[in-house]
Amino acid sequence: MSHPIITLLTDFGVRDHYVASMKGVILGINPRCTIVDISHQAGPQDIREGAFLLAGAFSFFPRGTIHLAVIDPGVGGLRKPVLVVTSNYYLIGPDNGLFSLALRREKVKEVIVLTNERYFLPRVSATFHGRDIFAPVAAHLSLGIKPKAFGGKTGAWVELGAVRPEQRGRDLLGEIIHVDAFGNLVSNIDEESLAGFTAGRAFSIRVGRHTVPGLKRGYWEGKKGEIIGLIGSGGFLELSVREGNAQKKLRAKKGDLVRVTRRGQPCSEGLGT
Amino acid sequence: MSHPIITLLTDFGVRDHYVASMKGVILGINPRCTIVDISHQAGPQDIREGAFLLAGAFSFFPRGTIHLAVIDPGVGGLRKPVLVVTSNYYLIGPDNGLFSLALRREKVKEVIVLTNERYFLPRVSATFHGRDIFAPVAAHLSLGIKPKAFGGKTGAWVELGAVRPEQRGRDLLGEIIHVDAFGNLVSNIDEESLAGFTAGRAFSIRVGRHTVPGLKRGYWEGKKGEIIGLIGSGGFLELSVREGNAQKKLRAKKGDLVRVTRRGQPCSEGLGT
Amino acid sequence: MSHPIITLLTDFGVRDHYVASMKGVILGINPRCTIVDISHQAGPQDIREGAFLLAGAFSFFPRGTIHLAVIDPGVGGLRKPVLVVTSNYYLIGPDNGLFSLALRREKVKEVIVLTNERYFLPRVSATFHGRDIFAPVAAHLSLGIKPKAFGGKTGAWVELGAVRPEQRGRDLLGEIIHVDAFGNLVSNIDEESLAGFTAGRAFSIRVGRHTVPGLKRGYWEGKKGEIIGLIGSGGFLELSVREGNAQKKLRAKKGDLVRVTRRGQPCSEGLGT
Repeated sequence: MSHPIITLLTDFGVRDHYVASMKGVILGINPRCTIVDISHQAGPQDIREGAFLLAGAFSFFPRGTIHLAVIDPGVGGLRKPVLVVTSNYYLIGPDNGLFSLALRREKVKEVIVLTNERYFLPRVSATFHGRDIFAPVAAHLSLGIKPKAFGGKTGAWVELGAVRPEQRGRDLLGEIIHVDAFGNLVSNIDEESLAGFTAGRAFSIRVGRHTVPGLKRGYWEGKKGEIIGLIGSGGFLELSVREGNAQKKLRAKKGDLVRVTRRGQPCSEGLGT
Repeated sequence: MSHPIITLLTDFGVRDHYVASMKGVILGINPRCTIVDISHQAGPQDIREGAFLLAGAFSFFPRGTIHLAVIDPGVGGLRKPVLVVTSNYYLIGPDNGLFSLALRREKVKEVIVLTNERYFLPRVSATFHGRDIFAPVAAHLSLGIKPKAFGGKTGAWVELGAVRPEQRGRDLLGEIIHVDAFGNLVSNIDEESLAGFTAGRAFSIRVGRHTVPGLKRGYWEGKKGEIIGLIGSGGFLELSVREGNAQKKLRAKKGDLVRVTRRGQPCSEGLGT
Repeated sequence: MSHPIITLLTDFGVRDHYVASMKGVILGINPRCTIVDISHQAGPQDIREGAFLLAGAFSFFPRGTIHLAVIDPGVGGLRKPVLVVTSNYYLIGPDNGLFSLALRREKVKEVIVLTNERYFLPRVSATFHGRDIFAPVAAHLSLGIKPKAFGGKTGAWVELGAVRPEQRGRDLLGEIIHVDAFGNLVSNIDEESLAGFTAGRAFSIRVGRHTVPGLKRGYWEGKKGEIIGLIGSGGFLELSVREGNAQKKLRAKKGDLVRVTRRGQPCSEGLGT
C-alpha cells in the first residue's frame, strides 16, 4: 500500500491514554501510516452505536483502507479477534457484531481469525487487545502482510441482532440508535428499507407523542423550531428540529421506538380503487 | 504544494462520524495531505464562536495552508459556498461570516463561488456540504488545481455583524464570545481596539457585578483566586482567575456584556490640565 | 529522524484553538512530522493526572519519539522550560514534575534548560509557552538539531511529591489518580510496588466502604456488576465493575484513598511459623 490509512473507532473516549497507545504501536510498526479517528465516543460497550458510527463513515475512505474498531465488552474472554476482508476494505476487531451494519453494504471475501502471535505485541494483556492484538495486526497488514498470514479462515461470524427495522402490518418499527451533537435523533431505519416499505405511499413518523408527516429533503425545508423527518447524511431516517435540538424538544433518547405508519394507498393507485 | 495542510473547523463534535467522513473524502483525493483539527466543538451553529476559534489559530499555520470551516446553519439553502484566497491562506466554507475575524488580519485577493460540480462528490446530499462539496474542493485545491477552476469570482461576501467592540462615550462595549476549557472568559475586544480606545489612560473592566482594574501581563501576576484582565494568546481581552475558573466565579456566560471604562486623563497629560 | 513523531499531552481541552496553534507552529517548522495526541483532557492544571496519562502511553511509541507535555500552572513565572533526554525518548515541557512517572521507567541521560531564543517563536507571549517555546523547540529537535543547542545542562529537576504509594505497617496506601471513560478507578499503586508489598501473601483492597479480595486477571473474571481489582493496561492497580461503572457504584473520585491490606502470612511460610 503506497499510502496506507488506518481508521480507529472505539468507546475509549479521548481523555484517557488508550487511543494514543494504539497509535504508538501502529507507528512503531509502520511509521508511514496515516491514522484517522472515526470516533472514540461510542457509548461505553455500546456495540450497536459503534456499528452505526462505523457504517456512517467507512465507505467515504479510499479503497484499501483498514478500519480498526474496538468496542469489546468481552475482551479477554471467548469472543474471537477477526480480520474481515471485503471487496473494498479491511475490518479488524472483535467478532461481536460491530461490523454488521457496514457489512450490509459490502461483499465479504474472507474472514480470518487472528491467531498468529507473531503479529501481536510480545506481551498481550488481558484487558487491552486493542493495543496488544488489533493495533499491531492492522499495522502489519498495512505493510503488505497477506491476510492469511494472521490466522485461519472462518465461515461463521457474529451478526448484531435487531439492527434492522421490523415490519408489522402498516407499521415499520425501528428505534433511535444514535443522538448526534446537534440533538438529531438517528434511527436504524435505512433509506432502502423505508423506500421498500412505503413504496410511494404517504406515511407518518412517530416518536413518543410526536408525529411528523413524511420526509423533508433538508433542514431548510422546516420552519424554525419545527420537528422534521429526513434521511440523514449516513443514509438513515432521522428526526431533527430546524435551528433547534430534537433530543431536547422530544425528550427522546437512544433505544426509543420510531414508528413509521403508511397512511393510505400509493399515489399512483388513486383513492377507493 | 509539497506538504499540503488542510485544517478543519466545525461544530460537528467528535462523537459523530461526520468529521471522519470529511477526512476520508480528502484522503481519497489527496492521500499526501496532512489534516489538522482546529476544533469541532464550536457551539452548535454558533458562527461567531467558530469565527473566534479560527481567528485564534489560523495564522500559526504555514503559508499556503487550506483552512476548511463548516458551521453551516443554512446548509442546502441560499448561502453560497466560497473559497477565499488571501495573501497567505485559502479559506473554504459557507459564506456566512465565519471568516470575518480571520479576514480582519488578512489581505483578500479573491473570493470564488464554488459552482464547478466536477470537484464535488458525485452525489451531493442536502444536509452535508462539508463532506460533499467543501472537503473535495479543499482536497483538489491541495493537489494544485487553480482557484478559478472552482467557479466565478464574486465581489461581495457576508461580514459577521457586531463582532467588533463598540465605543460609547467613555465606554468600550464588547461581549464574551468564548469560554475556554479553563473557564477563561474571552471577549471580542481585540488588543488593537483596546489600545486605540484607552490610548494610555487608566481603565477598568466590568463583567456583571465584577470590576477589574486594567490589565495584567500574565496569570502569574494575579494572586490565587483573584480575577484579572489580560490579553489572551489569541489577541483578545479575557478575564481569568489565577488557579481558578472565571466562568464559575463570575457566573458569566457567552453573550454577557464586557464594559471597558476609561477612568481619567492619559498619563502623559497630568491631572487637571 | 526519518519519520519523526511528536506527541502532545495538555490540559487544554479539544474545544479551544490552543492545541491547533501548537500543531500549526510545529508543521511550519517541520512539515514532515507526524503529530499524535495523547490527551488534552487532563484535569485543568492537574500535573499528577497528566503525569499518569503520559506514563500510560509514552513507552508504546517508537524509540526517538518526542513527547511534548504542557500542563503549566506556572506559565510565565519561575518554573524552567526543559528538554529531558532519556535512553529512548525526548520529553519537553515545564519542569514541574509532569515527567516524574514516565521517568521512573527511563534512564535519564541529560536535562537541558531551554534558553536559546533562536528556537522560540519570535514573539513569546506570557500566557502560552506551549505554542511559543515548547512547540517550536520540539519541531526543531525533530529536524535533527542537537539537544545542547537549546540551552545548558542542569543536574536538578522537579520530582512530583507523593506519587508513590506509601507503606504503613500491614497497609499500602495509595489514592485514585485518574478515572477513565469507563468509570474505572485507577490508583497510583503500580504493579511492582504492589508485588513487592504483598510478596505472595493474600491481600484485600479497600476504597471508601468497599473491600475487594485481591486481584482478578481481567474483567471477564468478575460477575456482572461485581467490583474487582486488577492491574490495568497502564500497569497500575485499578478498581472496576464488570459491565458497569466503578465510579458510580463506589461514589468515588480522584484523590480518594486506596488501601491495600495484607491478610496473613505468605503462602510459602505456612501458618504459625
